[in-house]
Amino acid sequence: MRSRSLYPASRLSLTPDAFPPVVEEFLRQPLAATLSTVNPSGTPQQTVMWFKYEAGDFLFTTLTGRVKFRNYLRDPRGSVAIVDPDDMFRYVIASGVFAVDDRDPVAFYRELGRQYLDDEGLARWAHTAVTEGRIVLRLTPTRRRIEGFPAE
Amino acid sequence: MRSRSLYPASRLSLTPDAFPPVVEEFLRQPLAATLSTVNPSGTPQQTVMWFKYEAGDFLFTTLTGRVKFRNYLRDPRGSVAIVDPDDMFRYVIASGVFAVDDRDPVAFYRELGRQYLDDEGLARWAHTAVTEGRIVLRLTPTRRRIEGFPAE
Repeated sequence: MRSRSLYPASRLSLTPDAFPPVVEEFLRQPLAATLSTVNPSGTPQQTVMWFKYEAGDFLFTTLTGRVKFRNYLRDPRGSVAIVDPDDMFRYVIASGVFAVDDRDPVAFYRELGRQYLDDEGLARWAHTAVTEGRIVLRLTPTRRRIEGFPAE
Repeated sequence: MRSRSLYPASRLSLTPDAFPPVVEEFLRQPLAATLSTVNPSGTPQQTVMWFKYEAGDFLFTTLTGRVKFRNYLRDPRGSVAIVDPDDMFRYVIASGVFAVDDRDPVAFYRELGRQYLDDEGLARWAHTAVTEGRIVLRLTPTRRRIEGFPAE
């Protein structure tokens, strides 16, 4: 059973023009990103993803047959939420526009595997990892909300 | 620094017609829900929320002045993602339709506070909790995706 949280003494909510260093450090950890794209019917589609933070952008890899890639082709706008697993009052939400990134998708996927998994996990993952039809998507934020990080 | 994860030996992904008991037990914990609604421009709006799981539905409270409530009034469709903070390969994503729930919003908000916070956190939270203009929203799922839970 998950234990209850200590409510923070103060909650600083900001919408900065760029991520401050303390947030960039947070985003370099192997955390779960909840990605939201737009379905053809106009409803939000959410998926839980690995990601790489790079120079203000968020990089993901998916397969060209997946719903989120088809959604991207029709409407490249999306949003990502990353919550600190140790403190739900600390999180980042960024929304913006996706574009296909031209780096090698399989090499990037392996890089993510190494970022997220320990050696044993990596060995298991390598057996099932799908490389065919893989693509890299880059989300460039136009809006950033950061909550629960210290002021700098 | 968040440590790397052990990749699971197998990953069971299901879209059941109802949440099985092991998932209901998971959803009764004080976890962060990432809610997605639809903005007027058609982009997804994400927020991190407390929630109560009740008989298949997800209950939230917000303020009538907030973006997500205005989004609900225009388009009641939405999605919620709840990731296990101890295991990112275990999560629930549900999408469906919101409706206003007619229970007392302030009493419900206090109930959520007790669910999520320890005594010290509750005392801090009570000082700043906004009760004016509060409303309860119920998300009734039409689609459920559960990932990483044992088969029953």
